[in-house]
Amino acid sequence: MRLVEVFDTTLRDGLQVEGVTATVDDKLRIAEQLDHLGVHYIEGGWPGANPKDIEFFARAQTELSLSTSTLVAFGSTRRPRGKTDDDATLRNLLEANTSAVCIVAKSAEYHVVEALQTTLDEGAAMIADSVEFLRSAGRTVLVDMEHFFDGYKQNPEFSLRAIEAAVVQGASHLVLCDTNGGTLPHEVARIVADVKSHVGDDAIIGIHCHDDTGCAVANSIAAVEAGAGHIQGTLNGLGERTGNTNLTTVIPNLQLKMGYTCLPDGRIERLTAVSHHVAETLNRAVDPQAPYVGSSAFAHKAGLHVSAIARAKDAYEHVAPEAVGNGTRFVVSEMAGRATIQMKADEIGIDIDGQQINQVIDDLKRLEHEGYQFEAADASLELLMRRAVGSVPEFFRVESMRVITDELPGGIAGGAFSTEATVKVWVGPNGPDGDDAERHVSIAEGNGPVNAIDGALRKAIERAVPRVAGIHLTDYKVRILDGGSATGATTRVLLSATDGTRDWTTIGVSPNIIEASWRALEDSLVYGLLPRES
Amino acid sequence: MRLVEVFDTTLRDGLQVEGVTATVDDKLRIAEQLDHLGVHYIEGGWPGANPKDIEFFARAQTELSLSTSTLVAFGSTRRPRGKTDDDATLRNLLEANTSAVCIVAKSAEYHVVEALQTTLDEGAAMIADSVEFLRSAGRTVLVDMEHFFDGYKQNPEFSLRAIEAAVVQGASHLVLCDTNGGTLPHEVARIVADVKSHVGDDAIIGIHCHDDTGCAVANSIAAVEAGAGHIQGTLNGLGERTGNTNLTTVIPNLQLKMGYTCLPDGRIERLTAVSHHVAETLNRAVDPQAPYVGSSAFAHKAGLHVSAIARAKDAYEHVAPEAVGNGTRFVVSEMAGRATIQMKADEIGIDIDGQQINQVIDDLKRLEHEGYQFEAADASLELLMRRAVGSVPEFFRVESMRVITDELPGGIAGGAFSTEATVKVWVGPNGPDGDDAERHVSIAEGNGPVNAIDGALRKAIERAVPRVAGIHLTDYKVRILDGGSATGATTRVLLSATDGTRDWTTIGVSPNIIEASWRALEDSLVYGLLPRES
Repeated sequence: MRLVEVFDTTLRDGLQVEGVTATVDDKLRIAEQLDHLGVHYIEGGWPGANPKDIEFFARAQTELSLSTSTLVAFGSTRRPRGKTDDDATLRNLLEANTSAVCIVAKSAEYHVVEALQTTLDEGAAMIADSVEFLRSAGRTVLVDMEHFFDGYKQNPEFSLRAIEAAVVQGASHLVLCDTNGGTLPHEVARIVADVKSHVGDDAIIGIHCHDDTGCAVANSIAAVEAGAGHIQGTLNGLGERTGNTNLTTVIPNLQLKMGYTCLPDGRIERLTAVSHHVAETLNRAVDPQAPYVGSSAFAHKAGLHVSAIARAKDAYEHVAPEAVGNGTRFVVSEMAGRATIQMKADEIGIDIDGQQINQVIDDLKRLEHEGYQFEAADASLELLMRRAVGSVPEFFRVESMRVITDELPGGIAGGAFSTEATVKVWVGPNGPDGDDAERHVSIAEGNGPVNAIDGALRKAIERAVPRVAGIHLTDYKVRILDGGSATGATTRVLLSATDGTRDWTTIGVSPNIIEASWRALEDSLVYGLLPRES
Repeated sequence: MRLVEVFDTTLRDGLQVEGVTATVDDKLRIAEQLDHLGVHYIEGGWPGANPKDIEFFARAQTELSLSTSTLVAFGSTRRPRGKTDDDATLRNLLEANTSAVCIVAKSAEYHVVEALQTTLDEGAAMIADSVEFLRSAGRTVLVDMEHFFDGYKQNPEFSLRAIEAAVVQGASHLVLCDTNGGTLPHEVARIVADVKSHVGDDAIIGIHCHDDTGCAVANSIAAVEAGAGHIQGTLNGLGERTGNTNLTTVIPNLQLKMGYTCLPDGRIERLTAVSHHVAETLNRAVDPQAPYVGSSAFAHKAGLHVSAIARAKDAYEHVAPEAVGNGTRFVVSEMAGRATIQMKADEIGIDIDGQQINQVIDDLKRLEHEGYQFEAADASLELLMRRAVGSVPEFFRVESMRVITDELPGGIAGGAFSTEATVKVWVGPNGPDGDDAERHVSIAEGNGPVNAIDGALRKAIERAVPRVAGIHLTDYKVRILDGGSATGATTRVLLSATDGTRDWTTIGVSPNIIEASWRALEDSLVYGLLPRES
């Protein structure tokens, strides 16, 4: 089983994606996750290009303890007609104090002549000098050959000369970059094979792709088949434009389907969890459709086939989802058949009869018509099913609710906003209908309406239902359905919560965002208060 | 230039994606878009599996006038041990009254024996009988060979026999389906070449992939290179699990990079518009990272390189974005250099001096730190830049605002929600500071807080600024930043509007969703009221 090294550049190239910013703390947390997954190299950033990245490498030395991965600092070759020993980029690179560094080198004639405005001789010298300088400072040196494929198609002699300049000076890796992302698999296969025949075993050939043709994963595979031993990419395909090679896709393709070794034993099972953890850290949901790690990757919807799939999963799933830490999911929707509902009831652990199943199917149809979707709201689905069999106690009953948001005089330019909520509930040790039930009126301020109603509801019930204090909201998502009717559209709220051992998500739907949030909030607290067997 | 037919199954397989439902009206509108794009075949649905789809084909006969595409009804072979002439599925297929039909046929031993519980002889007979029946009714018959690649790896003889059964009876197309989506490009290339050598020119070989390995596009290309002349897929890669082959990616790969002809002349330029139109109809945004058609596909972020890119776009873009109806976008962000701001000012048509550019860069840094992002909010960016040069008139000034949401007694189970907003503004024919300015207090109800404040603000200013009536909000999006702090998190609102000729988007950010919406709403109205040169 040939080894294919995994080089993760989520923290450098990945953060070029539009709309994502990461703090130094975020980057340290992500690096820990990457080490936990077991990639060979973690490219942490470009010290000097960015003050954050200097801080990252400084803190990494004391705060980051990697057991599997090697941390890499990124930089570039010296500038044209400059010297290595007074080059700020190279100095920053050494000051990052990592055992390995990766430098980007222009390996396409066009970019040397036009972008650098220098000669091909100087272009090759920049590479040789820089590798020599970093090697003599004791670093392992990987070289990212920028615009390699486009350059090779234009002038293969110069692109190979750039490679030789790096190899002669002791670069460990020659990483062929499809910088503009436009190369297709058959071209990658041919060019990597050419380079391999020149380089032999003098250095490891790497591949760095972008997904501009939707082929980054296939290109990386083609390169490995043609002799590359090192793949660069990002978790979840983060990266500028269309993103970099998605490591969460290419790793299982190579390791589970093609017999290569990418991660240490026992690590690929962590793929789904690490993918989601990193996405959360960057506040960017994993695409539900993402291969291997997406929530829909092993979801079966069609009601008719669910029982056939349950009998013989491997006839309907291209790999065992557990191999990458994901799982089969039977999606319950209005198309769900009776068998699906029965299976879900078994999964939850409730007894359900035929009439109750019909009730659940009717409820699902009505609610999905209103815009509810239970695919992402397991707790609301479980409550719906438990209510159908009558196993949900009434912990509290709301009489009324009001929330007021004020912008105080001062106008849009300067007015301060304040929000307060009032909630009136019936509650008691024996439920809202018990003899000892009481009416509680609570008021709470919040930094927004949902925050305020959450605070007021908790205050109103906390004395009678103290366990509510152990429930914490962890995520709040808003989706506008039928955006075309703008502010009059239906709003779908998903609210996630935890009690420290379990996580759950509930849903609320209404044209009124406050009402939608309120429905999701009530379900969330009720679900968290349900007695648990274990 | 060899022709590769495009078969779109957005309306059938694509609608299996989780979270999407389409009305018959939606489907008719999408079919019009597909015809406008110029695909060869539009698979409209499965009449009989779904009452909606029977209605779709009925209405299509009178309401859908296709100039380029052929409408196809989908179905399956007759059931095991049944007869064709009393088979409900086949009857529904004929009643759809399309000139071409596509039937799914089990072509893998496992699925014939285990899922159908029948013999291989009967499996082959089901295909032959069904094709013969439909052919004798005058239909062009395409056959989707289900689980073909997995079946071929298990028992190639039976899979080829299934193909022969279809060919002998006159099927026009043999569509090889990677139903579980687990096949990789080198396997597709080998198996398609095998099939091609058996079939020759007796029928067109098609390819139908799913993206479970992230290789659906590369697999489709590999199949075409091995002899397939027909690709099936969906717009934007819609489809169950990880989605079907994304036609918006594979078409430009084949046509712009490999010299095949997929669409009639002059149509591929419509790709981006059709992709977004279909996504909007299904209320599902196009992935900004989507190759070719995504909003980030040709976006350049790194401030340093923007001027180099502007000089020589083809050195930094793998195809001309205009070829697919997209465009280059220079992303303005805190990383923006002075050159980017200057270019943006030129684009908008304002004069800006060095000090004003510094002001804009400072404002961007501060606001992006708060969570603003101007990448998707061009109008807010333009206002920010126009304010820096002092060219935004003050149309109205808000003194204060209040919005109240009440749940009336009746409780969570039954309480009705009502929302009302009060807005106090200064406004006048010569602006809020004119001698003739007046204070207006308006109140409006709404089906949610944002709807109510929109109504109240418009009422308050409409007499003094009647042009506001021509501005309509078209979309409202809410994103929770730092979801980890749940209902206390920062909220980002994007609000889109139109005046019938122009569309624009503004942004508001605040921990308070009402405040964030209010900021976006004010900017939206101000932008719409700006005088236009043209």
